[in-house]
Amino acid sequence: MATKTNPGNYFEDFRLGQEIRHATPRTITSGDMALYTALYGTRFAVNSSDEFARGLGLPRAPIDDILAFHIVFGKTVPDVSLNAVANLGYASGRFGEPVYVGDTVSTTSTVIGLRQNKDGASGIVYVRSIGTNQRREMVLDYCRWVMVRKKNVDAPVQSSVVPDLPDAVQGGDLIVPHKIHIGSYDFDLAGSRFVWDDYEQGEKIDHVDGMTIEEAEHMMATRLYQNTAKVHFDALMQKGSRFGRRLIYGGHIISLARAISFNGLANAFKVAAINGGRHVAPTFAGDTIYAWSEVVAKTELSGRRDVGALRLRTVATKDKPCADFPYKDSAGTYDPAVVLDFDYTVLLPKRV
Amino acid sequence: MATKTNPGNYFEDFRLGQEIRHATPRTITSGDMALYTALYGTRFAVNSSDEFARGLGLPRAPIDDILAFHIVFGKTVPDVSLNAVANLGYASGRFGEPVYVGDTVSTTSTVIGLRQNKDGASGIVYVRSIGTNQRREMVLDYCRWVMVRKKNVDAPVQSSVVPDLPDAVQGGDLIVPHKIHIGSYDFDLAGSRFVWDDYEQGEKIDHVDGMTIEEAEHMMATRLYQNTAKVHFDALMQKGSRFGRRLIYGGHIISLARAISFNGLANAFKVAAINGGRHVAPTFAGDTIYAWSEVVAKTELSGRRDVGALRLRTVATKDKPCADFPYKDSAGTYDPAVVLDFDYTVLLPKRV
Amino acid sequence: MATKTNPGNYFEDFRLGQEIRHATPRTITSGDMALYTALYGTRFAVNSSDEFARGLGLPRAPIDDILAFHIVFGKTVPDVSLNAVANLGYASGRFGEPVYVGDTVSTTSTVIGLRQNKDGASGIVYVRSIGTNQRREMVLDYCRWVMVRKKNVDAPVQSSVVPDLPDAVQGGDLIVPHKIHIGSYDFDLAGSRFVWDDYEQGEKIDHVDGMTIEEAEHMMATRLYQNTAKVHFDALMQKGSRFGRRLIYGGHIISLARAISFNGLANAFKVAAINGGRHVAPTFAGDTIYAWSEVVAKTELSGRRDVGALRLRTVATKDKPCADFPYKDSAGTYDPAVVLDFDYTVLLPKRV
Repeated sequence: MATKTNPGNYFEDFRLGQEIRHATPRTITSGDMALYTALYGTRFAVNSSDEFARGLGLPRAPIDDILAFHIVFGKTVPDVSLNAVANLGYASGRFGEPVYVGDTVSTTSTVIGLRQNKDGASGIVYVRSIGTNQRREMVLDYCRWVMVRKKNVDAPVQSSVVPDLPDAVQGGDLIVPHKIHIGSYDFDLAGSRFVWDDYEQGEKIDHVDGMTIEEAEHMMATRLYQNTAKVHFDALMQKGSRFGRRLIYGGHIISLARAISFNGLANAFKVAAINGGRHVAPTFAGDTIYAWSEVVAKTELSGRRDVGALRLRTVATKDKPCADFPYKDSAGTYDPAVVLDFDYTVLLPKRV
Repeated sequence: MATKTNPGNYFEDFRLGQEIRHATPRTITSGDMALYTALYGTRFAVNSSDEFARGLGLPRAPIDDILAFHIVFGKTVPDVSLNAVANLGYASGRFGEPVYVGDTVSTTSTVIGLRQNKDGASGIVYVRSIGTNQRREMVLDYCRWVMVRKKNVDAPVQSSVVPDLPDAVQGGDLIVPHKIHIGSYDFDLAGSRFVWDDYEQGEKIDHVDGMTIEEAEHMMATRLYQNTAKVHFDALMQKGSRFGRRLIYGGHIISLARAISFNGLANAFKVAAINGGRHVAPTFAGDTIYAWSEVVAKTELSGRRDVGALRLRTVATKDKPCADFPYKDSAGTYDPAVVLDFDYTVLLPKRV
Repeated sequence: MATKTNPGNYFEDFRLGQEIRHATPRTITSGDMALYTALYGTRFAVNSSDEFARGLGLPRAPIDDILAFHIVFGKTVPDVSLNAVANLGYASGRFGEPVYVGDTVSTTSTVIGLRQNKDGASGIVYVRSIGTNQRREMVLDYCRWVMVRKKNVDAPVQSSVVPDLPDAVQGGDLIVPHKIHIGSYDFDLAGSRFVWDDYEQGEKIDHVDGMTIEEAEHMMATRLYQNTAKVHFDALMQKGSRFGRRLIYGGHIISLARAISFNGLANAFKVAAINGGRHVAPTFAGDTIYAWSEVVAKTELSGRRDVGALRLRTVATKDKPCADFPYKDSAGTYDPAVVLDFDYTVLLPKRV
C-alpha cells in the first residue's frame, strides 16, 4: 500500500535534463482578474478595459503579466520547491502570447543545472519552466534556481552542472505580441502623458504609495495561484520556524511593487521580460510595502516605431518610504528595509 | 526630466467649468459581482439571479447599483480628492442604464463650484461626475463636494461659486430603465411579500443584522474600485495621523448598510437616486456595522402602475444595534454611534 | 404596519410536510470559482481546467461539488436555521447534475421530521432540501437536522416524527452524471497516479498540509454562499456568547478538509454523496486545520468499468497535525482536536 501523499522531490531526486509535466492545468477566468485587482489595486488600463485593449490591437483585455507568471510558477511548486530551503533567483524570463480569460495554462519544467552544496545536506536545482496555453503557444519561459534539501545526506548525486544564464534578456529576444500596435492610445484614460521618450537612463522614480499586507490577502493570493508551499499557510508549523510566523510568497511582493509602480510608470502597459530578481528579505503580514524604480536601460525594438522597451530595476521596501531610494551601501550590502530587487523589462508607447 | 508621479490636484489647480477625463476605464466582470457578494453578503434577487432579472424585463442580472457607484467614484479620486481633507457630501445622484458584465465604465467630471476656506489653507471643490458605458450611455450622474488642501497658501484663487444643489432628486427626474416591468415577480424568491404599498411615510425599520469589518475586506473592496486614497491602505503613514490607523472608505459602509437593509427592504430591487449622504464619523477595522431606515417619502412614478419609489434615510451605526433607531438629539447632534446618514431613493414593485 | 424584517421560523412554526421555497436564486459565475480557489487552494484538475474536464466528457469545468453544497445550503438558513441552537447532522446527500458557470441554482425544502426536546424550549427540525438548476434538474438532494429554539415555550407542537435516515447513500443510488466517462484522463495533470484500485478498505491517509483561517476569509466565504447566520459575522453580539467571538461556518471546514485532501486523493475528481457529517467542535479565526481520511468502503458501480466509488471518512482537526490519525478514544469520545467527522463518497478512475 503505497503512500498516497506527495512527498515532493529532494535534491537527490532530480536528474539533469529531467522533464516534469506539472499538475493542475488552470483555465483563467474573469474572477481571477477581479481578485487580482482586489488584491493589488492595479490600474494599468490595458488590463482593466477591453475597449482600451482593443485600441492596442488586442482582442480584449489580457490578464496582468505578473498574474500569468504566478499561475505558471505555482504549478512548479509541488514538484520543484516543496522541499526548498530558499528561492534563489530568476533569469531569462520572456513573456510570449498574452493570456486571456478562457485560456488554459499548463507548465512543464526541465532540470538545467544541479550543484550540491559543500555541506552535502542540500543543493541548488536550476529549472527552465515553460507555461503554455491550450494551443501550445508559449505564454512564459523562464529559469529559476532554488536550494533544495537532500532527504538522505549520503545519497549519491550527479556531478555539478551550472547553466550559463544571461544577466538580462537581450532586446532582440523580447517578444512584442504581433497584434500589438499603438493605434488609438488614449493618454487620459491611461493615466499619464509620459511615453518611452520621456524616460532617461539612470532616472529614479519614487512610486510614493504604500500598501500594508494582511494575512488573509497574501494567503488568498497564493492559493489563487495554487501555490502549495506550506510556509505561507500554516501558522502553527511556522511558530516553530526561525521567523515564528507565516512567510509571504515572494511573488506577492512583485505584484504589489508592479501595482504601486503605476504611479510613475502608468504607460508601461506590458511586462516583456524578467531579467532577474532577488527576494532580499522575507515579508510578513503587517508590513507596509513601498517601491521605487530606476531606468537601467532604454532599448529600441527593431522594426517598431510605436513601442520601446525600458529595462527597470524596481526595489520594494518594507516600512520605509522610498523618497531617498533605499538600496545598497558602498560595500554592496542592502539597506535593511529592502525586500525585493527586481530586474525586468517593460514596453511603453513611443512618441510619434 | 519631469516628475513622473501624479501629485494630484490642489485647491488652486481647479478652475470653474474645468472638465476632467478620468483614467482607468474598467470592464465589469462577473468576478466583480462575486467579490461584491463575498464582501457584503448582498441578497437582492435581481442582482443575484439572471433568471429573476429576466422576470423584470432585463436581459440578465445587472451589477448592484452601489457597486456601479463605487466604480464610477473610484476613477475620480486621483484627480479630485488625492489631496482632500474630507469628503463632505453628495447630491443629485441619478442612476441611468443598468451596468452589466462586459460593460466598460468611464468617468468624466466637471468642476461646478469652488470656495476657498477662510483660513486660506484649503477650499471646497464641487464636481459633477458622469459615469458612462461603452455606448456613451449614462450609468450614473452625481455631484459631490470635497475639502481640498492648497499647496501654496498664497496662490490666487477664483472668486467663490457655490452651486445650487437640490435637497433630493425629484420624482420626475428618477430614471426607471425602460426595459423594467414587473412581470413575473416571484416574492418567495425575492425573500419578502412587502411591496411599495405596504410601506408608510415615517415608518422606521431596524435591519437587525450586524457585520464586523476586517482590514483585508475593506482594502480588497477599495482596491477593487481602483480607489487610490492612501488613508485606506498605508498603516505606517496612518500611524502618524490623528486616527492612528487606516480609515475605511466611506462607500464601504454604504454598501454594508444597503446589504444589511435587505432584511426589511428585500423588494427594493433598484437604487434610483442618491439624494444626499454624509459620512458622519470615520470607521475602522473591528467596527461592527448595524443599520436602520426611515421612509422619508413615497413617490408614485408617472405612467408606472407596477413600480413605485421610496425615498429612504438609512442610518448606519458602529458597535450599537439599531432597535431604538439612534440618530440625532434635540439639538441636532448625531448620536456618537452614527457613522452614515444616507438619503436615497429605491424602486419597489407595487401591488397590482 | 407589519414588521418588515424576517424573524426566522421558531420550532413551533414548522409543520410536518411543509414546503418552503427559499429566497435568493443564484446564478453561478466564474467569480465564484476564482474565489473558491482563493479561499481554499483547491487543485482538483476537473474543477480547475476546462480542457481537463472535456477529457472526462464534460462540456467544461464544473464548480466544486462542495461549493454547490454551500450555495444550496445557504438559501435554507433564513427559513430553517436563523433561530437554530445547533446544526446537528446531515444524511442522504446525493449530488446530481454538475453545476456550471451560468446555471441558476434555487433551493426548496420539505419538513420531514419534528421532535420537541424534553425541556420544551427547543426542538429538532428535520428537512430535506433539494437544489435545482434553471432546467429544474436536481443538483443536490440532502437531509439535515437542526435544533431550533421555541419562541413561546408554551406553544403547542405536533406529535414527534423522526424520519428514518440511512447511514449511507447506497451504491445503487449514487449518481454518476451520464456524460462522465474516463477517456483521456491525464494523470500527470491530475497530480497523482493512484486510481480507485490502489486504495484499500481501512487505509488511512494523512493529508499533511495545514491551513490557518482568518476572520476575513471565513466571512467572505460565508457571505459568498449568502448564508446569513449572524454568529459568523457579528463580533459585538458574539462577545456576549459562550464562545466570546465569531463562530466559523461549519461548511468552511468541510471545504478546507476537501481541499487539503487533494494531497493523497488527487484523483477523487467528484463528490457523489454526503452520507453523514458532524461538526464535532466549533472553530475560530486563528485555528489551523489539518485533515486525514480513512477508506470506509470501496464500491463498484454497476455498468461502469471506468469509475469506482470510495466511501471516505475525512476527519479535520484544529491545531494538531494528523500523522497519528486523531479520532475517538475507546469510550467513543472524540479527541479534543477533532472539529469535523465527515462521511462522504467520491468517484475515482479505475485502472483499465
